Amino acid sequence: MSTTTATDRVYNFSPGPAVLPLPVLEQAQRELVSLPGYGMSVLEMSHRSQGFLDILAEAKRNLKALLGIPDNYHVLFLQGGSRLQFSMIPMNLLRGQSQPAEYLITGSWSKMALDEAKREGQTNVVWDGKATNFDRLPGSELKLNPNAAYTYLCTNETIQGVQFHSEPDTGNSPLVIDASSDFLYRKLPVEKYGLIYACAQKNAGPAGVTAVIIRDDLLARSQDSLPGYLNYKNHVKEDSLYNTPPTFAIYLMGLVLRWLKDDIGGLDRMHQLNKEKAKLLYDVIDGSGGFYRGHAQPANRSLMNVTFRLPSEALEKKFCSEGEQRGLDGLKGHRSVGGIRASIYNAMPRAGVESLAQFMREFQAANG
Amino acid sequence: MSTTTATDRVYNFSPGPAVLPLPVLEQAQRELVSLPGYGMSVLEMSHRSQGFLDILAEAKRNLKALLGIPDNYHVLFLQGGSRLQFSMIPMNLLRGQSQPAEYLITGSWSKMALDEAKREGQTNVVWDGKATNFDRLPGSELKLNPNAAYTYLCTNETIQGVQFHSEPDTGNSPLVIDASSDFLYRKLPVEKYGLIYACAQKNAGPAGVTAVIIRDDLLARSQDSLPGYLNYKNHVKEDSLYNTPPTFAIYLMGLVLRWLKDDIGGLDRMHQLNKEKAKLLYDVIDGSGGFYRGHAQPANRSLMNVTFRLPSEALEKKFCSEGEQRGLDGLKGHRSVGGIRASIYNAMPRAGVESLAQFMREFQAANG
Repeated sequence: MSTTTATDRVYNFSPGPAVLPLPVLEQAQRELVSLPGYGMSVLEMSHRSQGFLDILAEAKRNLKALLGIPDNYHVLFLQGGSRLQFSMIPMNLLRGQSQPAEYLITGSWSKMALDEAKREGQTNVVWDGKATNFDRLPGSELKLNPNAAYTYLCTNETIQGVQFHSEPDTGNSPLVIDASSDFLYRKLPVEKYGLIYACAQKNAGPAGVTAVIIRDDLLARSQDSLPGYLNYKNHVKEDSLYNTPPTFAIYLMGLVLRWLKDDIGGLDRMHQLNKEKAKLLYDVIDGSGGFYRGHAQPANRSLMNVTFRLPSEALEKKFCSEGEQRGLDGLKGHRSVGGIRASIYNAMPRAGVESLAQFMREFQAANG
Repeated sequence: MSTTTATDRVYNFSPGPAVLPLPVLEQAQRELVSLPGYGMSVLEMSHRSQGFLDILAEAKRNLKALLGIPDNYHVLFLQGGSRLQFSMIPMNLLRGQSQPAEYLITGSWSKMALDEAKREGQTNVVWDGKATNFDRLPGSELKLNPNAAYTYLCTNETIQGVQFHSEPDTGNSPLVIDASSDFLYRKLPVEKYGLIYACAQKNAGPAGVTAVIIRDDLLARSQDSLPGYLNYKNHVKEDSLYNTPPTFAIYLMGLVLRWLKDDIGGLDRMHQLNKEKAKLLYDVIDGSGGFYRGHAQPANRSLMNVTFRLPSEALEKKFCSEGEQRGLDGLKGHRSVGGIRASIYNAMPRAGVESLAQFMREFQAANG
């Protein structure tokens, strides 16, 4: 069998694990049997070796530079995905606190986070979008307790396709966000946040590594009685080497960070590209005279996951099937919203989105 | 830069992450940009796609076939490594039990497991090898409570290089083992075990995935109040898709399992090869007239990690450095034992061990 190349690829609109930058995959492929200078694959390198320590340090350095992370924040690379963060956050930040944590329920992922937090301590739901099937985000009506143990939200709900484009003012309450599906889509004012976390497999790398950015003063809340792996303090103290980290996933995330920095030119440029890509699809939806109906309210539309319906489920099925034949893969929406979901993360090339937009116009012309 | 190949590689004796079979790396390299038939990298495939479900199912099937796992056991692929299992095991199997769990302390890893279990419930230490720096394992003097909540041991202590070559009789108490560093080195009588777990990065794959084999009746102990990710029941119910699993690590472990089955010919053959490889090194140690001194007592020697000292620390340093120049990498022992550790897991070719044995003889001749 011969080595696979770019010409063997489709456009992958899957919500996650998701498309990765082609230059990243090509570099990983070249280096897979032996990382130049080391005589072994990254997959085989000791996490204590200088080779891996350099990979880890570069990934941290580039992440800090891209997001402008201040010095009083720690960067960790953990395992267990968002699901484990749903529990680790209240275990570390809520136990022993006098005030409840506040949760904004804007879709499926924030709801799951709330369910886990309830096991660990007192929570308040300060907003819930269920009545309109999570098609919108809170506006000025939102009232937050400025002294809550923390305030939790999910910046981008992949299933519903709604996204916060700025952060609410949480006063003295540390703002904690699940940025799993829009991490690095733009530069964030990190100093406004207490904790930012993101599993990598949507916008920053492969499945199996979760980045956590935590403000130093919050570590004082972590109690020594916590299980060792679940205590943020242990990971900070050992610089993500408390146990064997997912070395290859960190290496690959490091390549994605390098691509963002060197090939794309930073997060402001990435943000601009993301806005342009999303506009290509939302313009087709808005210009379709109701043939395509967006799920999210226009003000809260996600730049990452474009969710929409067609006039019938039969047409939605036909749309996915004809899309697949054209090399447009993974367009089926989540069952709780139905319809179509086009995930157009950082690594989705503009050409892929253009191809989808063109297909949408043609499909409407043939079926509208 | 050109694609790396086998000729760029050294012999990697690192304790973990560790050497992987060359055919596995070569296949992963060929398929990295696009898995044939799927148009995308395994790194980009949705964990819900048929492509990944097939990969997961084949890995499970081959693991069950290789070890002869009975039908009343579940196979899970989790994240968080051994460290998270140190806590998950007592959280699931000890909470609510009337009898304490019993721990055998045979080296560094079992000691760490005990420290985490103590946070979760009542434990008894039934054996502790500290007095002789963990150079031996218990013999017939071992007295176990046949009704303990469970009996815990680490089958192979990588740091000290001691290994159980058979299992103690634990009566009605489920035997729970950390097999991280000798998983699949031989066929186990699985029916004698309650729970077997192994992080993959020593003998079965890359860092980032941990296999757990659990007997069905033990799931009844897991309380619904546990954090979602830490409850074995959730992972069994969702067949390792409770959250996004570490897809690429599972794919790679699947390739290793296929290699064991098809290239090696099964675990009995693997066991034979492992015995032969270890003998090459222990014979040099035993024939060196005391120049090389093995750490482990002969009856308890590990087939995976061969630990030994030289006459002086200066010679040990010289040994590592000259070894490295010959392409024999990762030989430095752990600081708690000192000296040399040659990790010769399943994937270490016999030629690598022969090369090390030859170097040991030459080094003694030049420095003895």
